Amino acid sequence: MKKHNFNAGPSILPQEAIEETAKAVLNFNGSGLSLLEVSHRGKDFDAVMIEATSMMKELLEIPEGYSVVFLGGGASLQFCMVPFNLLHKKAAYLNTGTWAGKALKEARGFGEVVEVASSKEANFSFIPKNYDIPADADYFHITTNNTIFGTEIRTDLTSPVPLVADMSSDILSRPVDVSKYGLIYGGAQKNLSCAGVTFVIVKNSLLGKVDRHIPSMLDYRIHIDNGSMFNTPPVLPVFTALQTMKWIKAQGGTKAMEKRNLAKASLLYNEIDRNPLFKGTAAVEDRSVMNVCFVMNEGYEELEKSFMEFAQSKGMVGIKGHRSVGGFRASIYNAMPLESVQALVDTMKEFEKKQ
Amino acid sequence: MKKHNFNAGPSILPQEAIEETAKAVLNFNGSGLSLLEVSHRGKDFDAVMIEATSMMKELLEIPEGYSVVFLGGGASLQFCMVPFNLLHKKAAYLNTGTWAGKALKEARGFGEVVEVASSKEANFSFIPKNYDIPADADYFHITTNNTIFGTEIRTDLTSPVPLVADMSSDILSRPVDVSKYGLIYGGAQKNLSCAGVTFVIVKNSLLGKVDRHIPSMLDYRIHIDNGSMFNTPPVLPVFTALQTMKWIKAQGGTKAMEKRNLAKASLLYNEIDRNPLFKGTAAVEDRSVMNVCFVMNEGYEELEKSFMEFAQSKGMVGIKGHRSVGGFRASIYNAMPLESVQALVDTMKEFEKKQ
Repeated sequence: MKKHNFNAGPSILPQEAIEETAKAVLNFNGSGLSLLEVSHRGKDFDAVMIEATSMMKELLEIPEGYSVVFLGGGASLQFCMVPFNLLHKKAAYLNTGTWAGKALKEARGFGEVVEVASSKEANFSFIPKNYDIPADADYFHITTNNTIFGTEIRTDLTSPVPLVADMSSDILSRPVDVSKYGLIYGGAQKNLSCAGVTFVIVKNSLLGKVDRHIPSMLDYRIHIDNGSMFNTPPVLPVFTALQTMKWIKAQGGTKAMEKRNLAKASLLYNEIDRNPLFKGTAAVEDRSVMNVCFVMNEGYEELEKSFMEFAQSKGMVGIKGHRSVGGFRASIYNAMPLESVQALVDTMKEFEKKQ
Repeated sequence: MKKHNFNAGPSILPQEAIEETAKAVLNFNGSGLSLLEVSHRGKDFDAVMIEATSMMKELLEIPEGYSVVFLGGGASLQFCMVPFNLLHKKAAYLNTGTWAGKALKEARGFGEVVEVASSKEANFSFIPKNYDIPADADYFHITTNNTIFGTEIRTDLTSPVPLVADMSSDILSRPVDVSKYGLIYGGAQKNLSCAGVTFVIVKNSLLGKVDRHIPSMLDYRIHIDNGSMFNTPPVLPVFTALQTMKWIKAQGGTKAMEKRNLAKASLLYNEIDRNPLFKGTAAVEDRSVMNVCFVMNEGYEELEKSFMEFAQSKGMVGIKGHRSVGGFRASIYNAMPLESVQALVDTMKEFEKKQ
């Protein structure tokens, strides 16, 4: 039976990226060697790193004056790298969920941190608006997509201070005006690659302004100066990221991705709103196009386990909601085909009829 | 033509580990999903992480009171994580090469650093002996194998203060008395896995003694408490590490590895010493069993390019020496079969006859 992979991350990747990776593990670039055992300084992998970097610039139309690097360590390491490199005295954070809160907490070790707004009291079911960003903050940090709670900031905000965004779970899902950001980072394991690599897009002019000692591995300038090769990079995850980006380009780039993602999200949210058995958990205007969270509607709570089993019997994988929200979460990242979302919708309809 | 992979790192892995990884990329554990797209919290990968951790403990006979974690970021990140977690006031470092020097340099950002000895003046061609380790140092750091210069500390030193060892390029190549160490770390991409994962073996009682603020991702205790799952781990590199360790176990463990490695190293060093065209660069008593460095002998320097081309024509890959030493370097890690070393020796003999 076909599996429909709604995992929140690591998560579905384009079949082409998976197959190219498997091929390269057996024989990379016709070299007779595995991608797992080639030198990162050899010309074959060097070309991969260069192409991955330029492909990211191309897909996001990154303007001059920005650098792109691919690092190990995960987005969680960025939670401290951002303040290490940018927090001089004060930083502002928007608290929209678990990951935003973790980023905020890490920054506290480096200076004053202002939480400009939080939707914690409402279990992060909406994105706060109308908050003040201190004009003397060194940067303003947001998490554009909140994987756990299914909310998303889908416009490029205007900030009086450099805008720093964790785009771990919605990078490349829509066109982004990078010029409005000072720094964008994210773990690759949702829309870009397997787990093990993190991308950072940073405006060069923001760097080199703090006084503190920065360990070399945590200093963006060192990674930029070394073309993401200051140390041995995570070779395979970078390779897979390139394959995914090639697939995105072949599909028509971020504009095509956005159209496709909006269609998938509409299909699923429409069913959630129509089907009396279910209801969405996020404020309608802040609904994520990537992670669709829903629970059993009032009066149908006792059907939760039954629907879960029914959905699993239909090949749905990874739709259990995070314990912070409960119910269900369907992650429908770039690589998720409309057909799989349709299959989930059909399953919801069929389950409704059975009651 | 068969390729003989003498790359210094990323480097040769057991064919079984490569094939199991390729299979899992297409279909992990019969789940119908790729290893690249499964949740790290799912039971299938959770079992991999648990088994990788226990296998490391088993292969190295790690005593009670030590923890094993697998992290992202590379051994270079450990250069700052070690002092972050262990350097209270003063640390001692043995400078035996480029990587040892980098580790030492990073520690300087955290306190007083004493270089107990260095072989820099001799281009790191030997391991210094008879140095004093300050009794008030928080730890003494060594690099057991110097990949670039082909020297190795092949015994477990006795230190009056906790011994910290970077074993990136000789882990699992011989039995180690872990009880003599406070902390052992290493990038996986030589003897253990592909690039993208780092192992840390640490004596629990050493942790929690420094006063400084440690960012969560740099705090060993947090990774230990979360079973290497504080953040999304590098899933595929951990999987491949487990496959390599299974292969080592099937071969007879670290004792069998040592026997095999000594046989390979003897074969190659004997030829270097016998063949009038070549000479080794490292002090004989400190020769690495992992990285065999050699150059053209006096009077034959002009044959270097010619031998390189001849060796390449025979399928030898990655034998160019690092620019710091020149000449040739054959990295003969655990997974390198004796047959490949024999092929290199035969190539050297054949080249000699041609002159």
